[in-house]
Amino acid sequence: MKSITIVGGGPVGCLLAVLLAKRGYGVHVVERRPDMRAANISAGRSINLALSDRGLRALELAGIADDVRKIAIPMRGRMMHDVHGVQTYAPYGVGDQAINSVSRGELNKSLLTLAEDHGVMISFEQRCVDINLAAPSATFERDQSGVRTTIASDLLIAADGAYSAVRGRMQYLDRFNYSQSYLQHGYKELHIPAAANGEFRIEKHALHIWPRHSYMMIALPNLDGSFTCTLFFAHEGSPSFAELTTREAVAAFFNEQFLDAVAMMPTIVDDFFTNPESSLMTVKCYPWVSNNVALIGDAAHAIVPFYGQGMNCGFEDCRVLIECLDDANDDWTTALARYQELRKPNGDAIADLAIANFFEMRDKVADPVFALRKKIESYLYATYPDRWIPLYTLVTFSHVPYATALRMGQENDAWMDRMMTIPNIAEEWQTEGGKAALEAIVRERAPHGIDPSLIVTR
Amino acid sequence: MKSITIVGGGPVGCLLAVLLAKRGYGVHVVERRPDMRAANISAGRSINLALSDRGLRALELAGIADDVRKIAIPMRGRMMHDVHGVQTYAPYGVGDQAINSVSRGELNKSLLTLAEDHGVMISFEQRCVDINLAAPSATFERDQSGVRTTIASDLLIAADGAYSAVRGRMQYLDRFNYSQSYLQHGYKELHIPAAANGEFRIEKHALHIWPRHSYMMIALPNLDGSFTCTLFFAHEGSPSFAELTTREAVAAFFNEQFLDAVAMMPTIVDDFFTNPESSLMTVKCYPWVSNNVALIGDAAHAIVPFYGQGMNCGFEDCRVLIECLDDANDDWTTALARYQELRKPNGDAIADLAIANFFEMRDKVADPVFALRKKIESYLYATYPDRWIPLYTLVTFSHVPYATALRMGQENDAWMDRMMTIPNIAEEWQTEGGKAALEAIVRERAPHGIDPSLIVTR
Repeated sequence: MKSITIVGGGPVGCLLAVLLAKRGYGVHVVERRPDMRAANISAGRSINLALSDRGLRALELAGIADDVRKIAIPMRGRMMHDVHGVQTYAPYGVGDQAINSVSRGELNKSLLTLAEDHGVMISFEQRCVDINLAAPSATFERDQSGVRTTIASDLLIAADGAYSAVRGRMQYLDRFNYSQSYLQHGYKELHIPAAANGEFRIEKHALHIWPRHSYMMIALPNLDGSFTCTLFFAHEGSPSFAELTTREAVAAFFNEQFLDAVAMMPTIVDDFFTNPESSLMTVKCYPWVSNNVALIGDAAHAIVPFYGQGMNCGFEDCRVLIECLDDANDDWTTALARYQELRKPNGDAIADLAIANFFEMRDKVADPVFALRKKIESYLYATYPDRWIPLYTLVTFSHVPYATALRMGQENDAWMDRMMTIPNIAEEWQTEGGKAALEAIVRERAPHGIDPSLIVTR
Repeated sequence: MKSITIVGGGPVGCLLAVLLAKRGYGVHVVERRPDMRAANISAGRSINLALSDRGLRALELAGIADDVRKIAIPMRGRMMHDVHGVQTYAPYGVGDQAINSVSRGELNKSLLTLAEDHGVMISFEQRCVDINLAAPSATFERDQSGVRTTIASDLLIAADGAYSAVRGRMQYLDRFNYSQSYLQHGYKELHIPAAANGEFRIEKHALHIWPRHSYMMIALPNLDGSFTCTLFFAHEGSPSFAELTTREAVAAFFNEQFLDAVAMMPTIVDDFFTNPESSLMTVKCYPWVSNNVALIGDAAHAIVPFYGQGMNCGFEDCRVLIECLDDANDDWTTALARYQELRKPNGDAIADLAIANFFEMRDKVADPVFALRKKIESYLYATYPDRWIPLYTLVTFSHVPYATALRMGQENDAWMDRMMTIPNIAEEWQTEGGKAALEAIVRERAPHGIDPSLIVTR
């Protein structure tokens, strides 16, 4: 059976290692950082992720979805906080549809152990310093010693993230298309601790948003009752990180903009100066495959976090790659060609959707017309599910390809624009006359033809 | 006075070295290749370039424009060759306006010698292998020996071309935006030798084009009576390089598509298999400046060759940088900030114009409606120069910023679209009625306000 080296032991690298080991391959994962199971990372304060159904489906393939659900907190909607502290709730979907707040660290640890349980060898503190794409082989430098070793294998898969070393080498291939583009906005992590009694200080089962037009703060719940907050804010300009250089300026800014949150953030000013200001990058490239070397996850398509789909997309890459191997009877040349052909348009689509969702989250969610459109959309989805599926549902609660979701979302917008021209729509849409007007328009739309089984409605 | 290292001894690096040495700086140019003045490069068969007024203006600053004109062949228009060998001529401009075919090698040699004449040190066969952006310093490896040396200087300027090593290092800076994108088309150089008597076999003072819709061949004259031809052709698909794998296929293809040319190309089949198939890449990035390190020329903005502006744009970068130094009294921080702010939009504009011109050259030039539009445009420029300047003139015979040229070109297209709706325009435009109809439209357009001295009309 073929030997496979996976560069990168993050969630995507580990999940892929498990899935390939289950197929009988000899898999070696090589990771730059130390083993996080040994290192001292507090689960409560680590980064959390929004795991949704695409990610869960791949975890099911690996047999670990139920274990992960136990350490996840379902978030069933967004809770918007205005400048006065008034909260407004909007559900993400229907019934039990939810996205799941999970600790990136805890999830990664579980996957590392699962990989080892399946016979995967994992080497830590080995930084990839060179790649031979033709061999293929990868050269690593051990952090402490500087000793270099080269590993050859039948296949080399790069799951080494947004700043992928393997992709860095592929960039010098002839006809390799590549772009990295940064947003003007960056982010900083902040913290809302649990209440004295260990309880959550704000609604546990929601993703909290403080939309402020040109910027926003969000908060996701952790198992220990705390919330991890992220401020998405311009690097430069006014207002921006560049302006907040003194403790007084930070305190004044948070008191003015996030008064209800700041009351729950006793260490806000210290956290602001302790935690780094990070950047937000989108990477697109093609091809993803060169001979027996392939890119997967963020290495192939780094995206901004605003749709909570980065890891979900990476996990879906793994699921699709496994299906391509199924279809090709493990002929890797055929499977990898099909994998990149299937996934590239979807990587591009979720990259664009993620950027668009930043504008929606920071700005539009606070707009009454936007709220009206969302309510009408929920009604249309409930009443005419063969003609209308909301974009958020397609992205988050479905296995419909992202590219299809993007296209249908654009079509939804155009149809909704027409509906908004119905006279007095805001007042009338729930009356018989209003519903008839909506129906007249929605009936003009052709059925979408999407298999209902692709929508997840637990 | 400050010390300056220029990585790359191509035309842009050498020209900049001359201009900076003339200001009194200590300049060291470090080049990867051997000294081409010693190496055996035949001037007659080397790559040729279309030098136009932007490039000449920078060469004038260096005091070498007149010398370069002596080795240049003015091309005053395009000569189109159809599949039957019928030739159609269209002038590029008016009067003596022309672009100039020059040997890249001869121009580079002249600039190397001029740089040394101005006291510039030039080191050859030194490949840049590492950069310290903060110092700044650059580490080079000598080709033969593998010996590495590191050069520190006050300023480091990267003129090391489309595959810039310095830019490769800058790519890992936080918030460095970067893209490299390849066309589906590549190119191969071919050759039309001089006639037995040393004469040019086709019109000397023209750029020859064999437009074939999805692809094209061009030819530029050399001093020895030969022409350097370039076939721009799809890498894959049908027809494409990938299909032409046998001598018979190549001969059949050229006989069918380029019958008049092939009669002048005795070594066509051998050349086709000897010469490499090369790729066409566009690079955009930003920022161009990091502390005391700056990108210039192709290192900052690699473009495709279809507007003949790659070197011209690089030379204009040099001229603008020198003007920024003038304005800033040689305060480099101020000058470099201004330089990148001024040049980035123009680098983007000429990159986009160059791609657009591929479609024009390979496809539209053979279209009678396009020819009509060009004729009307010439009439409008001659008659209403305050309202209308053709895009080609703005790009090639002017010092108007490329971004302004791009915008005016788009406006020209919209106004011309309106003119084409005049009834029977093709037949009527030279009659009194037709001219009155054109005038009625052009008079609606606001004067462009461009300083006439920016247009070069020798």
